[in-house]
Amino acid sequence: MRIDVVFGPTTATPALIAGRVVAVIDVLRASTTIAVALGNGARNIVPLESADEVITRAKQFAKGEVRLAGERKMLMVPGFDLGNSPGDFTREAVEGKTVLLTTTNGTAALVGLQGARDVVVASYVNLEAVAVLMRTAARAGTDITLICAGREKSFSLEDAACAGRYVRAITKRLPKVELGDGAFAATVLDRKYADRLDLLFADSEAGKALVEAGFGKDLEECARLDSCPVIPIYQDRQITLLGPDRER
Amino acid sequence: MRIDVVFGPTTATPALIAGRVVAVIDVLRASTTIAVALGNGARNIVPLESADEVITRAKQFAKGEVRLAGERKMLMVPGFDLGNSPGDFTREAVEGKTVLLTTTNGTAALVGLQGARDVVVASYVNLEAVAVLMRTAARAGTDITLICAGREKSFSLEDAACAGRYVRAITKRLPKVELGDGAFAATVLDRKYADRLDLLFADSEAGKALVEAGFGKDLEECARLDSCPVIPIYQDRQITLLGPDRER
Repeated sequence: MRIDVVFGPTTATPALIAGRVVAVIDVLRASTTIAVALGNGARNIVPLESADEVITRAKQFAKGEVRLAGERKMLMVPGFDLGNSPGDFTREAVEGKTVLLTTTNGTAALVGLQGARDVVVASYVNLEAVAVLMRTAARAGTDITLICAGREKSFSLEDAACAGRYVRAITKRLPKVELGDGAFAATVLDRKYADRLDLLFADSEAGKALVEAGFGKDLEECARLDSCPVIPIYQDRQITLLGPDRER
Repeated sequence: MRIDVVFGPTTATPALIAGRVVAVIDVLRASTTIAVALGNGARNIVPLESADEVITRAKQFAKGEVRLAGERKMLMVPGFDLGNSPGDFTREAVEGKTVLLTTTNGTAALVGLQGARDVVVASYVNLEAVAVLMRTAARAGTDITLICAGREKSFSLEDAACAGRYVRAITKRLPKVELGDGAFAATVLDRKYADRLDLLFADSEAGKALVEAGFGKDLEECARLDSCPVIPIYQDRQITLLGPDRER
């Protein structure tokens, strides 16, 4: 059984996807936002590649059923209901709703994953919940690939460190797992910061950019380890909670 | 002035190449081999993408002028003069010759770099020599991109750690350099191993694979820090030494 970590979705070859449990990580902020939205009762989240797609798709819903959400250059798309700040996705805002979400990196990484056994959305806020699912898969011999969404498709420090945290959470109880070089390097980054996610975000380019753009509060939300213990599953082009009827 | 490190040549966007000093790193083994060959007097090295191209190109040379070199799945291509082991490229073997070289990762990373100010080939054996050129460029305000060739286009631990060594060698004397997340992460990996390149190679997938294939001795050669202080420049589809007439 093997774990790979991939930096940037464009480097995820079909062999790293097919038959595997795949997690997509975009800590700042899409995967955190998705976990928080589902934790606060959103019915489902539909990741879309463009703001135009969000607007077109919204027409298929009654007005009270849907929320238009997402960012470009970190800011809420004009005319949308919500940006990409986890704090926007309160129970009042999203409970029972379909969220149509477009973000620069995280949603693009989800769209187009073909052939995976399961695709989950991973972040720090739902770490242990998702790690449990991964350990179960790993024990059954299923390989795992963690895809760091990255920033503009390149390496991002916080996604890599978060991936390392997952690798460690899986291998702590399954010591004989084979690690790819990316997975091994990710654990080195995770060890450097341990629980000081504030320092991790302070070192990362995305973290600095968010602070500069006035989203410093988002960093606190994204650092709340295990505050939102949900397992978001991407299937049939939407993300829903792994519910009791879908346990495996 | 900014330094970026890119993991896998496919993630090097044009913006990370244009006008920059670009270094390609394939520690195990192509970039080490290239440095050693030039250090031992090879006239030039022509990186080619396939074994067929090597054979076709060789026909343009008189027999004593050229060496056919390279590997597939780590082993010397049948019928070639040399594999991809640095130790193959002795003075006797290469002095005054043109080396036509094809390797799985390193040469592919070189072919196709367009618009860079300079492209150099970097490894541990020529670290300080290449770092001097980079510091000169950095002082003049030129941005730098280090491209880790990686293994089968994905992340490789030893290339990332070597890139980190270069980043530290540049920033030690130029502390106010802006680092991309990849560059920062690379320095974390370099710090973990420091001068214990034997441990680095023991942890890396490429290192393990080479040992298994019987190339353990190559790892020792690739770990000889500054043993071959040359600056290999890639220009006009060939790699030559940066000579006195080309100092800048």
